[in-house]
Amino acid sequence: MTSLARGPVGAEPPGAARPDGTREPDGTGHPALRGLPAVWLRANCPCPGCQDPGSGQRLAAITGLPADVTVARVLASDAAVEVIFGPDGHRAVFAADWLARYGDPVGEAGTGPGPGPPDDDRTEDAKRLWAAADLGGGIPQGWWPRYLADPEHRSACLSAVLTHGVVVLHDVPGEPGAVLAVARSLGYVRETNYGRLFDVRAEPAAANLAFTRLPIAPHTDNPYRDPVPTIQLLHCLHAATGGGDSTFTDGFRAAAVLRERDPAAFTCLTTTPVTFAYADAATVLRATGPMIGLDPRGRIRQIRLNGRSLAPVRLPAAQARAFYAAYRAFAELAADPEALVTTTLAPGDCVIFDNTRVLHGRTAFADGGGTASASGGRRHLQGCYADLDGLASTVAVLARSQAGQEDQDERPWQAGP
Amino acid sequence: MTSLARGPVGAEPPGAARPDGTREPDGTGHPALRGLPAVWLRANCPCPGCQDPGSGQRLAAITGLPADVTVARVLASDAAVEVIFGPDGHRAVFAADWLARYGDPVGEAGTGPGPGPPDDDRTEDAKRLWAAADLGGGIPQGWWPRYLADPEHRSACLSAVLTHGVVVLHDVPGEPGAVLAVARSLGYVRETNYGRLFDVRAEPAAANLAFTRLPIAPHTDNPYRDPVPTIQLLHCLHAATGGGDSTFTDGFRAAAVLRERDPAAFTCLTTTPVTFAYADAATVLRATGPMIGLDPRGRIRQIRLNGRSLAPVRLPAAQARAFYAAYRAFAELAADPEALVTTTLAPGDCVIFDNTRVLHGRTAFADGGGTASASGGRRHLQGCYADLDGLASTVAVLARSQAGQEDQDERPWQAGP
Repeated sequence: MTSLARGPVGAEPPGAARPDGTREPDGTGHPALRGLPAVWLRANCPCPGCQDPGSGQRLAAITGLPADVTVARVLASDAAVEVIFGPDGHRAVFAADWLARYGDPVGEAGTGPGPGPPDDDRTEDAKRLWAAADLGGGIPQGWWPRYLADPEHRSACLSAVLTHGVVVLHDVPGEPGAVLAVARSLGYVRETNYGRLFDVRAEPAAANLAFTRLPIAPHTDNPYRDPVPTIQLLHCLHAATGGGDSTFTDGFRAAAVLRERDPAAFTCLTTTPVTFAYADAATVLRATGPMIGLDPRGRIRQIRLNGRSLAPVRLPAAQARAFYAAYRAFAELAADPEALVTTTLAPGDCVIFDNTRVLHGRTAFADGGGTASASGGRRHLQGCYADLDGLASTVAVLARSQAGQEDQDERPWQAGP
Repeated sequence: MTSLARGPVGAEPPGAARPDGTREPDGTGHPALRGLPAVWLRANCPCPGCQDPGSGQRLAAITGLPADVTVARVLASDAAVEVIFGPDGHRAVFAADWLARYGDPVGEAGTGPGPGPPDDDRTEDAKRLWAAADLGGGIPQGWWPRYLADPEHRSACLSAVLTHGVVVLHDVPGEPGAVLAVARSLGYVRETNYGRLFDVRAEPAAANLAFTRLPIAPHTDNPYRDPVPTIQLLHCLHAATGGGDSTFTDGFRAAAVLRERDPAAFTCLTTTPVTFAYADAATVLRATGPMIGLDPRGRIRQIRLNGRSLAPVRLPAAQARAFYAAYRAFAELAADPEALVTTTLAPGDCVIFDNTRVLHGRTAFADGGGTASASGGRRHLQGCYADLDGLASTVAVLARSQAGQEDQDERPWQAGP
């Protein structure tokens, strides 16, 4: 314990009382513990017996801790805090700055946990909500060759998916299958009944509206899946002529506007589970959830909006009327020109978006059936699904590399000094 | 409209009033409409203009329907109900038995929606919760050769994953990679940073406790992922000697028991988002959610229990104490011998389980480092992840094949006569 020897030692007599003599029933109260209770400290003990030094994973099960754990003694320096627990005499040494990250600010015990990263990076609190005007007329963009060559550019492009929900990469090779390379650059392809990748173009007798020339309102893809695919990629091989533009809406913002303007409609959509369904010759999928999903603290976390695959709701008449009115209000906000960004995807453009948040659609297009040409002609996109957590991991690993070290925030269990 | 001509015709004069003269403001009230409001009927109109006959997907966006839609006229037979909507004169023809599926039972208008399949097959309401005694000492089982040859056996095995959350298939070839064939038989492999498949055996300097010989308490796999993998497969290539048994607990039942015995602890775990984290040289994953996830109606829907990767909670001291007490109570219920089934996986056994519900663990084992032998020796499992919705689709397609027809429940939009 050289760190204790180096710092100004603040040894306490047994009992771990506060300087003013008060203490909590669990023996805490020493300022160095920053208001953290004994069970918290013990559950996060970084000693090699409690936490695997190799993997950082916890070895000590919660059920194996003494139910009546207390802090019996505290020895604190600027750098480290040694705790002897009662009743079993177990010993832990914490880095003081690590405790500061989780405990109360010094002198403000009882005011709540200290500052830290957002506790859930999937909710509205961790996002930058946008209307069309906020994006200056276009979605965030990057360039595939630079994305490959420059980790900072790659990080910026992928971070845009976390903050804004969408990015378009230009100059992806206009080759079939290139979308899989883009997906592999950020995570893992999620294979579905549509294959590892799927072609979006007009087909006769299409089993899915995506494969027609019809316009499509802003929507979530595959809401009949659970889990819904979190990342979608769409890569343009041939652009349409006469329409076929892509549209994007921030569904979190649309939901937030609904909450502000019509709280009852918002509550209806957050509390009414609805079923989405899809079937073809080889597939029968159903999934149920609210159109606006909240976390346990009431923050917007997941949008499911798709009129094409919404099954009839099972509600008493009055509730059904309220539901359809709320659904209409939300769909109108999602299609509002103030909310919606329209983008013409050019050959080589690959859009990557958070399918749990950003709603996508397209305008109708006229062409089809003709021969593809380099300048446009028959509209042809290739798409695939991937996972948002894999993308976030890629961003975090890039950040770690750029910082030249492991960020402790990413390994919150690394509590040792 | 030959169906109308065949059945006993119940034509109504314009206005769609009830036989007793009363009607709703939206023009409904005719008994054939079974209490369903005009907006519900219009939103589910099965005409080719509203619903693509090829795909069954809805063409008419909710935003395109008249906001003041009414039922102007009803013509009903035993088989079909024709509706003329106001104000635009749009015409829909519904199958009478299809309306009956969603509307009130005849003569009981206002009592709520009619009978139907469970609205969300992922919640506790659609499951058969079990304690160890309910399973007669073992988890549901099947045999891979019969599973391949007999669709009924395959359906029964996979249905056990939906109802009980777990099944073990015996006699899977004891070859590396065979687990991927099992996964492909029920859906799609979900590739992660652990690869398409992962090997579970004792390793030096393991980055994950799974790859040691230590015991592991009942837990959810990969709670630091969002979405958490819904299906896990584990295939035994070599059994352990001296321990290494697999354990399974119904996490939904453990949560339900907690709700009954300690409602405050249950509420704590359903309303407190906690963060799980994992990092190694190439990966930095974090995900946040409550340990017991509920649907908007308060039904148990998803368990996240894993002490190894739980990050320190950020809560004021009193809440932190309550959280750790609730977490301990839940973990104790999950490890309760009354709840837990212990199974010795033999070479060739492949267990398939719902990772959002069933908690798995293992007892410690002594061997390792030696040469594998057919009778046991060095414990070696191979695992992979897949998706529960794909498994449910496989069961539904098998049911459709066995019935020799499409089940309308699976295509709820097929409302036409």
